[in-house]
Amino acid sequence: MLGLMQDWPLVISKIIDYAASQHGSREVVTRSVEGPVTRSDYASVRRRALQVAQRLVREGISPGDRIATLAWNTARHLEAWYGITGAGAIYHTVNPRLFPEQIAWIIDHAQDRIVLVDLTFVPLLEALADKLPTVERYIVLTDAAHMPETKLRNAIAYEQWIGEVDGDFRWLDVDERAAAGLCYTSGTTGHPKGVLYSHRSNVLHSMALAAPDALGLASRSCILPVVPLFHANSWSIAFSAPMTGAKLVMPGARLDGASVFELLESEQVTCTAGVPTVWSMLLQYMEAEQRRLSSLQRLVVGGSAAPRSMIEKFEAYGIEVFHAWGMTEMSPVGSIGSIKPALGALRGDALIDVKCKQGFAPFTVEMKITDETGRPLPWDGKSFGRLKVKGPAVASAYYRSDDPILDEAGYFDTGDVATIDTNGYMSITDRSKDVIKSGGEWISSIELENLAVGHPDVAEAAVIGVAHPKWGERPLLVITPKPGRSPRSEDLLAFMSGKVARWWLPDDVQIVEALPHTATGKLDKVKLRERFRAHRLPSA
Amino acid sequence: MLGLMQDWPLVISKIIDYAASQHGSREVVTRSVEGPVTRSDYASVRRRALQVAQRLVREGISPGDRIATLAWNTARHLEAWYGITGAGAIYHTVNPRLFPEQIAWIIDHAQDRIVLVDLTFVPLLEALADKLPTVERYIVLTDAAHMPETKLRNAIAYEQWIGEVDGDFRWLDVDERAAAGLCYTSGTTGHPKGVLYSHRSNVLHSMALAAPDALGLASRSCILPVVPLFHANSWSIAFSAPMTGAKLVMPGARLDGASVFELLESEQVTCTAGVPTVWSMLLQYMEAEQRRLSSLQRLVVGGSAAPRSMIEKFEAYGIEVFHAWGMTEMSPVGSIGSIKPALGALRGDALIDVKCKQGFAPFTVEMKITDETGRPLPWDGKSFGRLKVKGPAVASAYYRSDDPILDEAGYFDTGDVATIDTNGYMSITDRSKDVIKSGGEWISSIELENLAVGHPDVAEAAVIGVAHPKWGERPLLVITPKPGRSPRSEDLLAFMSGKVARWWLPDDVQIVEALPHTATGKLDKVKLRERFRAHRLPSA
Repeated sequence: MLGLMQDWPLVISKIIDYAASQHGSREVVTRSVEGPVTRSDYASVRRRALQVAQRLVREGISPGDRIATLAWNTARHLEAWYGITGAGAIYHTVNPRLFPEQIAWIIDHAQDRIVLVDLTFVPLLEALADKLPTVERYIVLTDAAHMPETKLRNAIAYEQWIGEVDGDFRWLDVDERAAAGLCYTSGTTGHPKGVLYSHRSNVLHSMALAAPDALGLASRSCILPVVPLFHANSWSIAFSAPMTGAKLVMPGARLDGASVFELLESEQVTCTAGVPTVWSMLLQYMEAEQRRLSSLQRLVVGGSAAPRSMIEKFEAYGIEVFHAWGMTEMSPVGSIGSIKPALGALRGDALIDVKCKQGFAPFTVEMKITDETGRPLPWDGKSFGRLKVKGPAVASAYYRSDDPILDEAGYFDTGDVATIDTNGYMSITDRSKDVIKSGGEWISSIELENLAVGHPDVAEAAVIGVAHPKWGERPLLVITPKPGRSPRSEDLLAFMSGKVARWWLPDDVQIVEALPHTATGKLDKVKLRERFRAHRLPSA
Repeated sequence: MLGLMQDWPLVISKIIDYAASQHGSREVVTRSVEGPVTRSDYASVRRRALQVAQRLVREGISPGDRIATLAWNTARHLEAWYGITGAGAIYHTVNPRLFPEQIAWIIDHAQDRIVLVDLTFVPLLEALADKLPTVERYIVLTDAAHMPETKLRNAIAYEQWIGEVDGDFRWLDVDERAAAGLCYTSGTTGHPKGVLYSHRSNVLHSMALAAPDALGLASRSCILPVVPLFHANSWSIAFSAPMTGAKLVMPGARLDGASVFELLESEQVTCTAGVPTVWSMLLQYMEAEQRRLSSLQRLVVGGSAAPRSMIEKFEAYGIEVFHAWGMTEMSPVGSIGSIKPALGALRGDALIDVKCKQGFAPFTVEMKITDETGRPLPWDGKSFGRLKVKGPAVASAYYRSDDPILDEAGYFDTGDVATIDTNGYMSITDRSKDVIKSGGEWISSIELENLAVGHPDVAEAAVIGVAHPKWGERPLLVITPKPGRSPRSEDLLAFMSGKVARWWLPDDVQIVEALPHTATGKLDKVKLRERFRAHRLPSA
């Protein structure tokens, strides 16, 4: 027997309709790519999104078509998302920091028909345009006055483009399970893989993220997403801010410490979210200029783990730091580190210990850790295993790929290795492809690396598994020394000894001039493993 | 094109699974019907809910079957809900305060197969049992030690009943649109009407209600629902508390000022919700005993409008008061009165003015006010019209009824007449059946009544429309005087004059000994209109 409730689909247009209706005058502030700080509001974002949708339909765009964006966080980018999805099309955010060949591959794979591009990235696309046969038109996110000379196909300034229609438009009806957004995730091997969000997944993910234990967004909040819209829905903020009426501050292209500080302070931001690199620049600025933030209450850090000292410093400024963890395949948030009541009495180091973990899953995210056979492991804070997740905003497959990615119980393997403690706090131990399998037991490469970089002579450290006749694999430590230093292997091992289980200690140390990195700055362990494939351990 | 996200249904079992997994040791405290305060937690609620589900299946209950509950707010009642819905069946909450004939009619109409009943209501059901042919078995929500002698069919103590199974059970798979809950709403005319909630509507409504601008529930919250589970899902709290890991304090049968105060204080409750009657008793207790609440931050009042003085008194105690408004057909919450930033600077009377309104709609609730032809009216705080709503947790039809209840745009007419101001705050002006239609314009009966009771000689006032040859209807004021007072009609009209538009003033006043009331204590204007049907106004 079905319930007798209304059929009200979880579609993205409902979010901006709500924002315009209940929080229409709530501001959306942008540091524009052209320079000045500009001010809009949710009523205006909706009005212009309707123009975008109407203009797309006039352009011949049909439901399901992909529209790429190469753009910073701005009100125009935001309204474009609502316009694209309101026309039933799919916003495809392209990370402009990828290698140009990857960008071309991705746009071609997605078969994007239109590209919306910020002024910053026009030269990048001009260089690639020959490789983008599916793209019919380029819309430059600026006005006529700032429109550059360009040979991009059918290029037009955004303001002129939407100015050709009046916005008298009704959102197209779409199924809540229809595709709404596309974002490619690039690993160290193979081609990038497309994650295809639905209207439903974005709405549910954002409702879960607005909750007090996640972003805690209310109409009185003011949030500045440093995390880009092209990083998996800016961790929901493009949706969760209008959904709650929170004021939205868009930092545009300038993410240096001074620029971010200025916006946080002048707009009286209460919550912000971004990657450690940005927070590191902000901290340096605050320390150098001896300035404090008067309104900021909550700082969410994700993308990669925040160093302990960063958490300590922000907390000392009276700013609550929460780790968030997730991945493109999770829309992206899978856990967030607010403090449960069982830990409410913790202070000092014990509190920071918890904050260094990746947090606990919000409602709608199911988590488990398993051994290699798929058997669930206990939540004891010690057992570590493959981290697998399930939920309405977790990928079930990649775009244009038939490869199955879920286990028999419907869980997605995150590729991370993690522990979960008795309070439900998850802590990433390693990537599963990097973990070292020694005699059937796992050794965390990350834990050993963190230990090694604590040595005063070490600049950077990597630990990889190298073949061993008896144990299958044993750890090899590879380091780059700090300038002018030349540590000895035995000193490094002595330094690490006693801080981890004896059988975890690397069997060998190699000192190199440089370690390989990926485009996004992470250690490239694939290359490193290739390099040391034939390395013979002294213990072998 | 569909998105490639997991198919994770919005079913109620996900809520208790999440609570047990992430907030398993978070307490559920009950003032038991037997007497003592008992302590449980979400892990235990889930474990016992699994036993309920398993036991129901063994009893022969199939998906879609209705299970009635006549019960106070207790952990047992809560776990029964999760057990019933986890077996695919439908919890049907019966309001024990209805007239016995109504209770019998409702249980018979719902064709309930099993009734779960608190000790308090066993005698009530014994008196009705002959009229309940569909009920196969009565489960008394107690243990063997407290089980009364009863002739109720196949009666058994709940603890004994669930003790017969081990809880080794998997929730049955159900469609998220399947029916999960049933609650009848009784008006002043006709039979009660059943509202049939789905799993999806309950999950979405609760996610919306957990948000910071609504109940604002986090794992560190502690909430005491005075509002009964039999009042439309206890305003979501049976779901939103476990969904967020908030501690839940169940007040059982004792809702007097002293008992509620004691639980609020001893359990360090941060948020509570209930009807004005209960808060009035609490205030009287606090004033008489000169006691203050040390943890309570937020008090939500709904069901009917809170008097201004009540709001002022709680705010003076440092407790934020929010109005909530809704109805059984809305799951039930349609608006909540937290303060938007545009009003954040208000203090004193101006702030209380806003708090006297019914608040603004949360995400998932769409609202409009229309004139009698269905044309939308402006949100100016003055225009008042029929209040209509839309959303995933709003009824589309009544149970076992073919009557259409939505307008052509899919909105449900609440039967209320309201204004909505420029900030989106809605204020109920009247019930649409009570509003007086004079010469094509509407006059609010409630506004006139509120004015009339301000006169020092008036105990209670009612205003109804009476037929008028020229204007269609004109207002008639009917009052009961305070003991020993005998106000004159002309004095009452003079008192009201100048405080409303001249054409709103009643054409006549009748002074009576008593006004008719419904079972739930509201003015029975149907009876009153019958009584004065032939009344001839002096102006006619």
